[in-house]
Amino acid sequence: MNAYFPLFIPKSFFEKEAEHVEGFAKECAVVTHSRLEHDGKGGLKPAGKLTEELIVRPTSETIIGASFSKWVNSYRDLPLLINQWANVVRWEMRTRLFLRTTEFLWQEGHTVHETKEEALEETYKMLDVYTKFAKEYLAIPAIKGEKTESEKFPGAVSTFTFETMMQDKKALQGGTSHFLGLNFAKASNIKFQNREGKEEYAWTTSWGVSTRLIGALIMAHSDDNGLVLPPKIAPLHIVIVPIHRNEEEHKKVLGFIDELTSKIKHLRYNEEKIRLKIDDRDMRGGEKLWEWIKKGVPVRLEIGPRDIENSSVFLGRRDKQPNEKQSMNTDEFLDNITSILDEMQNNIFEKALNFQKENTINIDDKEEFYRFFTPRNKKNPEIHGGFAGSHWCGSSECEEKIKEDLKVTIRCIPLDAKEEKGKCICCGKESSKRVIFAKAY
Amino acid sequence: MNAYFPLFIPKSFFEKEAEHVEGFAKECAVVTHSRLEHDGKGGLKPAGKLTEELIVRPTSETIIGASFSKWVNSYRDLPLLINQWANVVRWEMRTRLFLRTTEFLWQEGHTVHETKEEALEETYKMLDVYTKFAKEYLAIPAIKGEKTESEKFPGAVSTFTFETMMQDKKALQGGTSHFLGLNFAKASNIKFQNREGKEEYAWTTSWGVSTRLIGALIMAHSDDNGLVLPPKIAPLHIVIVPIHRNEEEHKKVLGFIDELTSKIKHLRYNEEKIRLKIDDRDMRGGEKLWEWIKKGVPVRLEIGPRDIENSSVFLGRRDKQPNEKQSMNTDEFLDNITSILDEMQNNIFEKALNFQKENTINIDDKEEFYRFFTPRNKKNPEIHGGFAGSHWCGSSECEEKIKEDLKVTIRCIPLDAKEEKGKCICCGKESSKRVIFAKAY
Repeated sequence: MNAYFPLFIPKSFFEKEAEHVEGFAKECAVVTHSRLEHDGKGGLKPAGKLTEELIVRPTSETIIGASFSKWVNSYRDLPLLINQWANVVRWEMRTRLFLRTTEFLWQEGHTVHETKEEALEETYKMLDVYTKFAKEYLAIPAIKGEKTESEKFPGAVSTFTFETMMQDKKALQGGTSHFLGLNFAKASNIKFQNREGKEEYAWTTSWGVSTRLIGALIMAHSDDNGLVLPPKIAPLHIVIVPIHRNEEEHKKVLGFIDELTSKIKHLRYNEEKIRLKIDDRDMRGGEKLWEWIKKGVPVRLEIGPRDIENSSVFLGRRDKQPNEKQSMNTDEFLDNITSILDEMQNNIFEKALNFQKENTINIDDKEEFYRFFTPRNKKNPEIHGGFAGSHWCGSSECEEKIKEDLKVTIRCIPLDAKEEKGKCICCGKESSKRVIFAKAY
Repeated sequence: MNAYFPLFIPKSFFEKEAEHVEGFAKECAVVTHSRLEHDGKGGLKPAGKLTEELIVRPTSETIIGASFSKWVNSYRDLPLLINQWANVVRWEMRTRLFLRTTEFLWQEGHTVHETKEEALEETYKMLDVYTKFAKEYLAIPAIKGEKTESEKFPGAVSTFTFETMMQDKKALQGGTSHFLGLNFAKASNIKFQNREGKEEYAWTTSWGVSTRLIGALIMAHSDDNGLVLPPKIAPLHIVIVPIHRNEEEHKKVLGFIDELTSKIKHLRYNEEKIRLKIDDRDMRGGEKLWEWIKKGVPVRLEIGPRDIENSSVFLGRRDKQPNEKQSMNTDEFLDNITSILDEMQNNIFEKALNFQKENTINIDDKEEFYRFFTPRNKKNPEIHGGFAGSHWCGSSECEEKIKEDLKVTIRCIPLDAKEEKGKCICCGKESSKRVIFAKAY
């Protein structure tokens, strides 16, 4: 069920879970006053000091946990799932649009379970939901895996992630799903009477994706001409630009467009109406078209007097070059537009998937590994090889060493990693599986 | 266009519009620190003092205005409309669930116009949008009008409101639409080059409704049995409770329900699928039914072995008494369910409208006016006469006197008030129209 919990969390709630405090206390916005007063110098100063400071939520485990502890009494109350769409705040010194902003928007889900198995199942299930959405809607391929101890959510037993590759070959964490074990149940006192009539702590999970995915969308598909949007999530599927030299032609063209759009109205793409805009602004046609290219609209139609004569449309696709346009009979257009959109959605995904595959390699040699992550071009120091699948002994020392040397981190231990014998890329000790190393946003 | 602006507004933004400061500075949450540190006593203390305090937005005119001033250059950029769905914070000492909470959710619209006329037109238009929504979806009748000087939005030239009557005869302001004149354009420097090539300030408006409307919904329609939800906005239209004595009957009943729901799936109510739940929990039927009555589900269906025999359903409606149920042939039910929901929607609205009419009277005598607003029953001191349409001379002294004497305020100067000669209910001076007086939430 969707619910909404308060933005402000009393400071004392934070003090309950030790790791959680350490993780979030360093980067939170603290509300200390409840009003402003004139400072006598023409300005305003804080007044009404609060007896207990309020923290602007960085995440809501503690405050939702307080409600869970009241709602959960018996195994009959379980499982429980609450989802919240909200803004959260984590103080950032160096911000990066969509990727690292002090305030961001997200959904956060919180669940409570009777058994460890069920909680783990939920954790994996949400990771699947997210990667399916990334693949099928955002057209972004993802690698599912577990975070290492140093990268997991403060307070979680284990954190699962899906990692995506941007066009500069850096990794972007798309979202996370946390198995919290009994940690938050103990901190928030979430207990239930089990089937044997005994009281025990409940198993909890939490998971979220944020507006960061908009950053991923932009960086995964855009080209030098601007945004490229997968049709399924594009706010507009089609933009129509009327072409005319005088008012008479203008009227004729608009009439023709009206007729066409009344037919498009009956079509469905991905079970929804086709989202269409007629751009009849008083501006040069070329200027308008470039604006829509920049904004990533999948299909552009130019319609002028000659198109009316031939009963055709002049079609440009965002997955092709701007000047690679084709004339198409209107009936043919109407018959094919939904499959064109489907094809574009697939093309965009395939392109991203190929890019990820081309730039992901297994590396077993330490020297090669260091070379892989060393900038090829001094002018562009962030560009490097991509994702490396390499063996890791499991020690945080090796993880830390590589991070220090190369600014490369273990993005995840892939869920589908094969069991195979190998040697740690850092220390050479035995290892049983490869992990994904990359530079990350 | 929908957009999203920051939660935190720098203090200096607030200092720009004088009235606005006065109105909001007294009740805002102030962020002064960006992290927490251990206090050495096992607790946490604020650290990282900010150089400029941040105010958690009480409304966004100032921060959206800062963007408008960059976006608006020419009359060609106008009109401009931005809508934001967001949480806002206004510090409250005495809170009241849904009606007066420190944090609440709302939509806030902000527009910029070339002319005063167009801005005013927009202000009225949104008031109409809101009252239409209140009437057609929430089934709440509303009185549209203008606020007096003392009740208007800080910084607005004029504030329009729609006022609704709750079942205790008190008024609840449903939402507001503000004509801001040039005040915020001057404060935020929103200028444009007009058609004559000259630079001038733009006309702005803002308008919003909030989760307060959920409070209105609850208080306008609920009865002693719990919530009563108009079908158009009910999260569930129908709940089906299977009745059975043993597992064999249970299976049969569920089979029959499956068949019925597969037919309901094809129906549409208010252009949407019918929202339905089968409540097959392992609990007593009566207990389940009462739960759904309390939660305001419009239609309850009980289905047991006898209903299967007769191919019928046993139907309860939330706009009738709980025990006033009727058996109905399934085909008849399928043919009539959407009109039943329509009828319920209308019934709920008509009931609220009649209540409002019955408790709204014109009063011209001062003594009668005071009697009207004097509690009839000492045990229930908030209950009084309702809405009074009375003459008012326009002076804030008379407004203030009545507020002090009776805790009664002018809710609005109705837009449809007739011009008629009368005497101010307080001072007896001449007045040309009646205003609505009431006690308010």
